Amino acid sequence: MEPALVEERVWDRRESFLLINPAGTTPVLVEETGLAIPGAGIIAEYLDETRGLGLTGRRLLPETTAQRVEVRRLLDWFLVKFDAEVTGYLVTEKISKRFMTSANGGGPPDMNAIRAARANVRYHMKYIGYLMSRRKWIAGDHLTYADLAAAAHLSCVDYLGDVPWDEDETARDWYARLKSRPSFRMLLADRVPGMAPADHYADLDF
Amino acid sequence: MEPALVEERVWDRRESFLLINPAGTTPVLVEETGLAIPGAGIIAEYLDETRGLGLTGRRLLPETTAQRVEVRRLLDWFLVKFDAEVTGYLVTEKISKRFMTSANGGGPPDMNAIRAARANVRYHMKYIGYLMSRRKWIAGDHLTYADLAAAAHLSCVDYLGDVPWDEDETARDWYARLKSRPSFRMLLADRVPGMAPADHYADLDF
Repeated sequence: MEPALVEERVWDRRESFLLINPAGTTPVLVEETGLAIPGAGIIAEYLDETRGLGLTGRRLLPETTAQRVEVRRLLDWFLVKFDAEVTGYLVTEKISKRFMTSANGGGPPDMNAIRAARANVRYHMKYIGYLMSRRKWIAGDHLTYADLAAAAHLSCVDYLGDVPWDEDETARDWYARLKSRPSFRMLLADRVPGMAPADHYADLDF
Repeated sequence: MEPALVEERVWDRRESFLLINPAGTTPVLVEETGLAIPGAGIIAEYLDETRGLGLTGRRLLPETTAQRVEVRRLLDWFLVKFDAEVTGYLVTEKISKRFMTSANGGGPPDMNAIRAARANVRYHMKYIGYLMSRRKWIAGDHLTYADLAAAAHLSCVDYLGDVPWDEDETARDWYARLKSRPSFRMLLADRVPGMAPADHYADLDF
């Protein structure tokens, strides 16, 4: 079933949102039963446990112990490390600060933070290229949650025009393969209000 | 089986350690087979999958979907949020910087970072107190990985003398119960070289 997407401006710290996720962070998946599942990594584990078992060969968290460790390691890599070193800076400085009041931390972007993110993203592209030089997908032979997490973060950075696509051709090929999948369409059609994406953002040939 | 503890000074970025965990972070569990499992949350999932099924009533990651979400939510709370807001600052400023060269970021502690951590820890104590006012353990009726993660972080902060134990009596009672368990002894006996813990650190009655 398609989820209904709802925007949450976390810096407003709405009380009814904090009741759903006391940490005040997104994403949160809310089931029809009311169960709230906070955080992309926890949502991945939850979807695997509630829907994944029926998918056999297309399961996004693989079955063997060592492969599960590798998927989770790379989920953490992109959801925590890449976010802390790249996406967090760029999205805060270029997007969130436009919508925040000055009391909430709004204002002009901090160019030092943007420069740090642009330097950091280069070594992450090299790491993706290194992984893809020996694997079919980020965590091994099959598409997993690790590919989706990596692509989701890269897509945010690409929207802002800050992915150095010339850095690593192998990384670029992997992203092109993912971007062409039907499941990626909804993401590529999504827009930040009042802010156009980089020209090539939704092109499958970039 | 008891694990053998090995200290790793992550700021040295030893090549043989980066081969085990490219993210360069601790903890890492290394199995006798050579399989390396990086990160406390991933280690918890791994131990549950490889040893937890046999523990039935004493399993540290419970079996029902909603309880698993709650344990993972709180694991993230302490391993990521509490670490970013409290433990990370204190351990870096008060401990790691003593052992780092100045090129690695060593030097005197940044008192602003320490003050921020001391302010932040108060609302975390209140949150633990709030949870414990309606539950037997942090995530529900049973002891889980969430209790261990919370206690491990509090123990680091307590070693440094920075837990405001007067802030919330319910939180203090929960920690006293955990601290009295035999499995906690090894942790309480551990020492940072050249740095004594706070006076009450290993007391079961504090």
